[in-house]
Amino acid sequence: MSEKNIQLLLTGNELMSGDIVDSNSVMIAHLLSNIGLHISRKVTVGDDINLLINEIEHITQSADILIINGGLGPTIDDMTAQAVATASKAELKENVEALNHLTAWCEKRGVNLSESNLKQTILPSNADIIANPIGSAVGFRLSINQCDIYCTPGVPKELALMAEQEIIPQLKLTTSEQSFYLVRRFLVFGIGEAKLQEILDNTFPDWPSEIELGFRASSPMLELKLTINHQSNEPLLSSWIDIIKALLGEHILKEIKGTSASMAELVIELLRQKNKKITTVESCTGGLISSELTGVSGASNVFEAGFVTYSNKIKSTMVDVSPITLEKFGAVSEQVVLEMAKGGLAYSEADFVIAVSGIAGPKGGTLEKPVGSVWIAWGTKNQLYSQYFCIKGNREYFQKMTSTRALDLIRRQLLGSTETPNYINK
Amino acid sequence: MSEKNIQLLLTGNELMSGDIVDSNSVMIAHLLSNIGLHISRKVTVGDDINLLINEIEHITQSADILIINGGLGPTIDDMTAQAVATASKAELKENVEALNHLTAWCEKRGVNLSESNLKQTILPSNADIIANPIGSAVGFRLSINQCDIYCTPGVPKELALMAEQEIIPQLKLTTSEQSFYLVRRFLVFGIGEAKLQEILDNTFPDWPSEIELGFRASSPMLELKLTINHQSNEPLLSSWIDIIKALLGEHILKEIKGTSASMAELVIELLRQKNKKITTVESCTGGLISSELTGVSGASNVFEAGFVTYSNKIKSTMVDVSPITLEKFGAVSEQVVLEMAKGGLAYSEADFVIAVSGIAGPKGGTLEKPVGSVWIAWGTKNQLYSQYFCIKGNREYFQKMTSTRALDLIRRQLLGSTETPNYINK
Repeated sequence: MSEKNIQLLLTGNELMSGDIVDSNSVMIAHLLSNIGLHISRKVTVGDDINLLINEIEHITQSADILIINGGLGPTIDDMTAQAVATASKAELKENVEALNHLTAWCEKRGVNLSESNLKQTILPSNADIIANPIGSAVGFRLSINQCDIYCTPGVPKELALMAEQEIIPQLKLTTSEQSFYLVRRFLVFGIGEAKLQEILDNTFPDWPSEIELGFRASSPMLELKLTINHQSNEPLLSSWIDIIKALLGEHILKEIKGTSASMAELVIELLRQKNKKITTVESCTGGLISSELTGVSGASNVFEAGFVTYSNKIKSTMVDVSPITLEKFGAVSEQVVLEMAKGGLAYSEADFVIAVSGIAGPKGGTLEKPVGSVWIAWGTKNQLYSQYFCIKGNREYFQKMTSTRALDLIRRQLLGSTETPNYINK
Repeated sequence: MSEKNIQLLLTGNELMSGDIVDSNSVMIAHLLSNIGLHISRKVTVGDDINLLINEIEHITQSADILIINGGLGPTIDDMTAQAVATASKAELKENVEALNHLTAWCEKRGVNLSESNLKQTILPSNADIIANPIGSAVGFRLSINQCDIYCTPGVPKELALMAEQEIIPQLKLTTSEQSFYLVRRFLVFGIGEAKLQEILDNTFPDWPSEIELGFRASSPMLELKLTINHQSNEPLLSSWIDIIKALLGEHILKEIKGTSASMAELVIELLRQKNKKITTVESCTGGLISSELTGVSGASNVFEAGFVTYSNKIKSTMVDVSPITLEKFGAVSEQVVLEMAKGGLAYSEADFVIAVSGIAGPKGGTLEKPVGSVWIAWGTKNQLYSQYFCIKGNREYFQKMTSTRALDLIRRQLLGSTETPNYINK
């Protein structure tokens, strides 16, 4: 059986004007994907009756299912019922069920039924209503050209309840058991999208066509997505996931189940498991690493102190970096960053430390130490490491990437990894 | 002259799957509205070459302008160039300008040009490129059926720069001179959108219909937009801007010309003008304030040291908060935050200080000090102030809002304002 053609028609001037972000279609897509269904096309138009009728007529020529969102409200710019009625060549008339719902809704709230509210009970004569457990406007369902149309309200909470309680269960009944989708997603750090694609192409010229590969950049992370659409391919998927895991090693941070994770969350979780504390001594990142760590709820179990040592003098007074070392090697040097790390450990009594010193730019670079140069020191009192990176990009990118690499280096140490990571960000 | 028919075609599986919210179309709509243009229809499809070709062929039959967003990346699921070439019956070939751009981009980052990156230089032969100041993929422009097509990257920052620097200026040239639009935008902090609308409605029941009012929330800031569409209304606009400025006072951070500004940028600029230095002592914001300050290029002129004192013990060892004060009043108290501020000034030798201590949540609240409670101290050795706030929202919102309010309090002090700000965020 071929996949159902499901389309979404969103209506509302506020969706066209740049005033609000469309979160409803994300919600609908997410609910549908839970039952193996996918939206193939999404059209958004303002509150214009002719545009709406055109779109409905056009979409119902090819779609199996059309979900219309918005335009069910009481004001004159809400015209979904009228557009659907016209497109389906049906009359508009008062719907008794909708009227009963509205009457009960008003009574419950002690408000009078207004003329404009009554408009919400005038529906196409061939429509079946969909209950709205919280709002005044019912949804409704009908068919045009064998395309099932679901009309839903724009208020996110009303849409969510209506979808969960009626629409998704109805759609689930109509989907064939043969239509099967399985998606597995992995969070990757340290290899850019282009490079990962190239590595996979070169390593696996015979990549199986049954497994669809997808990428999603969410800088500085990358999401790798593997999809199959037949249950019989599950063993194949599992075996290829093992192959990819072996290839990418610690570049794979974790499998994403539900929502994604930040690098700081992963580090905090590992520290909590080991009951260890961490401190930060930051120059060029200026507090970004500590702020990412403390952005995670429960950070206080593993983080007590952070040092933002932006000037040379403060590096000496705050964490005891020797002025002689600073003079001899400069602030962006292995020697200084190691002394920063040791000072941080001493003053905070933490078990682990991250120290960074670099040149964020756009100014401050030299021929020997160009903008983007950064020394990172990390580890424990007994296992302290340091590494030089040159991270090209603007200031924001440099700071974010330095922070994420520093956290990744600690993550790898906490996992017991001894390999030097090979960061390829292109 | 009738309004131009402008349509938007968005492509990307991630836009269909419920994985991400489409913020790009909001950005485009917003930029267009600044020059008096409006999107009439928006279509979103996944990475499917046939769907893309169909949409392009269909849209170019009616639209004057089509902006395509996404699908310019280096991977196989990026197929905008191929779809546009097919729809315009043009060949795909290597574009020399795009190749030069990519070569320079790789050189600047010290990475090798990969096979997959090279794909980004293969464009329709009839396309003119649009510069991408930060990313590897250039945009491009061509026409089909007298419809101007602009192909833009899905990465929001790249899109923003390309739109601001090339596309919007080009579109502005093509709009008729009779269609006059003047937009003035102001950055507002400390009053929420609903409240500001209410204040303006109540204060000015006779608001002139010639001036269109618009709002745009970009948390925790708000943008206030005033638009006129006839040149003769410029004096009226100026006089109403004066009235609004008088009403909102220091809530208006600045008039936005070009790109917006962050609160940290405004504070750093004021400190530079006065040749003063600032330090931060952060508990619940965990380094966010120092990282926002050091995110601004040139921060080293005004910022040398920051203290992240997350635990009680560290508050004592790092900035000399008395253990007795901590015991007696608790970490989230006026007494403690004032001692934090004094300690920060003493150890950093800075002129100004921000100190914060609060409960970011979701855990850690009590009946007396609920989640969202925060004490902020700010000022100089001789003019040190403190204030309590209760900021409701999730952890991220709390930290961001606390940080922005703290910076705003310093900004107001630097401006010589003596009024207590009235923050109304609803």
